[in-house]
Amino acid sequence: MPLRLALAQINTTVGDLAGNRAKIIARLNDARAAGVDLVVFPELAITGYPPEDLLLKPDFVRAASQSLNEIVSATRGLTAIIGCVHVEDDLFNAAAIAHDGQLVGLYKKQFLPNYGVFDENRYFGAGQQKQVFSRNGSVFGVSVCEDIWYPNGPYEGQAALGGAELLINLSASPYHLGKGVTRERMIAARASDNTAFVAYCNLVGGQDELIFDGQSLICGPQGELLARGKQFEEDFIIADLDFRQVFRARLSDPRRRKRTSAAVADYEKISLRALPTPAKARSTTSIATPLERVAEVYQALVLGTRDYVHKNGFQKVVLGLSGGIDSALTAAIAADALGANNVTGVAMPTRYSSSHSLEDAEQLAGSLGIEFLKVPIDKTFQSFLDLLKPVFGARPTDLTEENLQPRVRGTILMALSNKFGSLVLTTSNKSESAVGYSTLYGDTAGGFAVIKDVPKLLVYELSRYRNSIAGREIIPARTIEKPPSAELRPDQKDSDSLPEYDVLDPILCDYVEANRGFEEIVARCGDPDSVRRVIRLVDRNEYKRRQSPPGVKITSRAFGKDWRLPITNRYQSAFE
Amino acid sequence: MPLRLALAQINTTVGDLAGNRAKIIARLNDARAAGVDLVVFPELAITGYPPEDLLLKPDFVRAASQSLNEIVSATRGLTAIIGCVHVEDDLFNAAAIAHDGQLVGLYKKQFLPNYGVFDENRYFGAGQQKQVFSRNGSVFGVSVCEDIWYPNGPYEGQAALGGAELLINLSASPYHLGKGVTRERMIAARASDNTAFVAYCNLVGGQDELIFDGQSLICGPQGELLARGKQFEEDFIIADLDFRQVFRARLSDPRRRKRTSAAVADYEKISLRALPTPAKARSTTSIATPLERVAEVYQALVLGTRDYVHKNGFQKVVLGLSGGIDSALTAAIAADALGANNVTGVAMPTRYSSSHSLEDAEQLAGSLGIEFLKVPIDKTFQSFLDLLKPVFGARPTDLTEENLQPRVRGTILMALSNKFGSLVLTTSNKSESAVGYSTLYGDTAGGFAVIKDVPKLLVYELSRYRNSIAGREIIPARTIEKPPSAELRPDQKDSDSLPEYDVLDPILCDYVEANRGFEEIVARCGDPDSVRRVIRLVDRNEYKRRQSPPGVKITSRAFGKDWRLPITNRYQSAFE
Repeated sequence: MPLRLALAQINTTVGDLAGNRAKIIARLNDARAAGVDLVVFPELAITGYPPEDLLLKPDFVRAASQSLNEIVSATRGLTAIIGCVHVEDDLFNAAAIAHDGQLVGLYKKQFLPNYGVFDENRYFGAGQQKQVFSRNGSVFGVSVCEDIWYPNGPYEGQAALGGAELLINLSASPYHLGKGVTRERMIAARASDNTAFVAYCNLVGGQDELIFDGQSLICGPQGELLARGKQFEEDFIIADLDFRQVFRARLSDPRRRKRTSAAVADYEKISLRALPTPAKARSTTSIATPLERVAEVYQALVLGTRDYVHKNGFQKVVLGLSGGIDSALTAAIAADALGANNVTGVAMPTRYSSSHSLEDAEQLAGSLGIEFLKVPIDKTFQSFLDLLKPVFGARPTDLTEENLQPRVRGTILMALSNKFGSLVLTTSNKSESAVGYSTLYGDTAGGFAVIKDVPKLLVYELSRYRNSIAGREIIPARTIEKPPSAELRPDQKDSDSLPEYDVLDPILCDYVEANRGFEEIVARCGDPDSVRRVIRLVDRNEYKRRQSPPGVKITSRAFGKDWRLPITNRYQSAFE
Repeated sequence: MPLRLALAQINTTVGDLAGNRAKIIARLNDARAAGVDLVVFPELAITGYPPEDLLLKPDFVRAASQSLNEIVSATRGLTAIIGCVHVEDDLFNAAAIAHDGQLVGLYKKQFLPNYGVFDENRYFGAGQQKQVFSRNGSVFGVSVCEDIWYPNGPYEGQAALGGAELLINLSASPYHLGKGVTRERMIAARASDNTAFVAYCNLVGGQDELIFDGQSLICGPQGELLARGKQFEEDFIIADLDFRQVFRARLSDPRRRKRTSAAVADYEKISLRALPTPAKARSTTSIATPLERVAEVYQALVLGTRDYVHKNGFQKVVLGLSGGIDSALTAAIAADALGANNVTGVAMPTRYSSSHSLEDAEQLAGSLGIEFLKVPIDKTFQSFLDLLKPVFGARPTDLTEENLQPRVRGTILMALSNKFGSLVLTTSNKSESAVGYSTLYGDTAGGFAVIKDVPKLLVYELSRYRNSIAGREIIPARTIEKPPSAELRPDQKDSDSLPEYDVLDPILCDYVEANRGFEEIVARCGDPDSVRRVIRLVDRNEYKRRQSPPGVKITSRAFGKDWRLPITNRYQSAFE
């Protein structure tokens, strides 16, 4: 009789113990109804991931433990593996093994990630136990997220060598573009290296800056892909696993045999009480097709925006529409994430705004079907100029006067937010944020920065993509084609202040994502002057980024938890 | 012949390899001139502390290693121990032992702190070697910062049992109020537990939100205090250590004997080439008197402000003066940190500002001797009201209109900053920041938040202290005595929206600094309704704090690197 396995790829919310519990119990009921024997949930499903410093609150840890108890009681008739926190003499990131209403085991995560966006050494002790679980004759081992990324992790040193035929991993793996491919390759290698099934249940959903992309996986004992969950959506993946496959494969691929003799003896094998296994119809298992590159990023941005807005208790958003491509793309993502009727675009022209900008903004709002407001700010801008005139005297006009305009706009958007209860979306892209081409408290003002981790060239790709799937011009062609401009003084162009984006973006990628040094970047991207100028701008604008709102991480290194540069910093990368 | 030891308590700057190197070499020359045998520098003196993600840049690590080489060459005639990064098969937080122009040893930090404000597991591998150093017959061991906080750290398990008579610790210990006492008690215990001299060289200076308070220490083998460096200032502490004291004390206090036999054999003893030891006059060693509590905080704020402003390349600051106590205290600190002629205070009254507020602001500016500007913003405020009227229609006046006023002020201050190149100081205190009693992009707008970690009640204490040391009314008595008000609507008082500060501050301390839960706080502070309300406000205002500028950490937990709560967070501490 095969084991019917389910992966409950759910979207949890950090701190929402009651909501997460209700969702888990609902999936337990779904599993029971579908004749599932063993159902797996993501890492820290009880608390949401990452709970960060909530984990330093004893009350929170206690409430989370209580929540687990209620869930365990709801596992009658099946086995469930649920990510949770666990207290012994220390706090652990754990997986609860619940069987027929009882807690029968607790696996404690052994490898705690503390790089990139991760801070798990801040919170958790590391587990060490060696256990496998036997259920109706099938033996499985459990691990949590980072554990499976180590070739000599619990799969190598423990579960597989300890007799497990199914290796279960509970995960909350933060998304960045292309990570799915790396992860799937690694999971397949773990399966074939250990000649075992691997069932990998990933979290899905947005949490502050992080996206968890789902795409849970099941691989067979030769590394073959048996199931792949959807990206950026909840999913409930069911597969029937015939454990005889493992024995058959191990006879032909005896690599495990050479490593196993000493290890097996160390293992505790916990036998779960037998449950009746009613005959059931064979299930069908689907393999979702991964999205193409630009579509993948687009969906990540949609999910990240929707979850940030909704999980923080908002329904509606408001944003400035300049007629440029950044605000156009942001509006399109917002409309897709929240529904067009929950999005308000505001054009706030001054004397420096070109007529086509206002037309393009209005056309965009029309094609998206979002509310459109026109609030011309020139009089208020002038009021600031008049007010400051006695103080500034005869000093020449400079960036000061340019910055006043976005700051008036930021103030208007925040006033609309205050009055109508909508969240302000900011529209800066990663290229601008990197070099500080933005006005603090002006265009950076807002609650969520949808495209803050999207480099400008990718902004263009995403905009064309959005038009292509609509089959019509959602984002006006002129918006895509005209040279980018902040329109804060007559005839201004981004290229007055910055290298062209096809020069800028590769330099930024090398410097920000890859930590490459000046000489290496010059060798790859050419033009020492541009490279030096860009590096200097990135280094000097940390103070602006530090006060910017959160936004969706889509690259391997965003300006968020994975970017921890000091503000006070005299290191000059390009000059030392 | 005693060993002449010096602790070079220096103020480094993160990333300023050339500047730090010059300062270290200058102290080496001072040491040589003073007949010093062994001079100790703080942790990571080469790079400044904490360098954060600069440590992920290979170019930076290489440049720092090169900088160390130059410093080692400058150690002719003496021994120097210098905090540095070190690359072997991994990156280490290390102490270089340089002797007479040669690198003779490298100690690698063994205990890496990864809690509170620390992230050292993100960057470093942990060392393990067992070494002591013998110099002209005197044996010493070396460790770095966190190592000495463990009773079974390298001092217990290694250096002292391995034969060291002097235990040297290089530190960069972030300040908070009262930490000096804890630290001194611990250092004394390490000395007497190991019957050895302990020489503890701490960093001094401000780095973004952190203050390092100096107060380097030397303790004798019975835990007696031999030297204490100044707080919040550079210092160069010299002491003559007679190692015969250690042998004499160990004969009478033989605890070490019972633990030592197995350990000694494991140790490598590195003998440093003998250097001539010219006869020298006995040195005198001073023990600085620690500052009293309020004075200590005041000096921490002064140092933190001065270092942030200067290390970021600014000379001048500008801030809004409301006539209230927060901006008055901030102005006083700024004047003390930077000189009165580098501070500009700006009064920006509206229709809701009382006449006494303007008078008090002007009086303060006069008593401090800072520049005073008056920029009445009511017309510009009205311009926003007019602009928004068609959008708001008949909706009632609410927080929206209140928030407009600080946002106009923030825009004015940023314009002054842009035009004159001065840094904007914000004036919010910790109590306000905790409960979100502030306007984002309004009174939170600025580059540095001087009193962001100072609870309101301590703001009063500091203000009275500042007047008391001046012996006159620097901060107007009326500013200190009048009920706090934001003056954003007629007859507004802070107490309309918040509990009185003598109720609020203890609740905040329990919740924010101590992670106490609802029931425990009610038991300690009474009034469940106030406690629930405060907790809810703290939880809901994380988004504002995340976009606030950095400021000086003075408590055991500031809203900075030691406070990592998610924004998206449905946990309701007071209701679960």
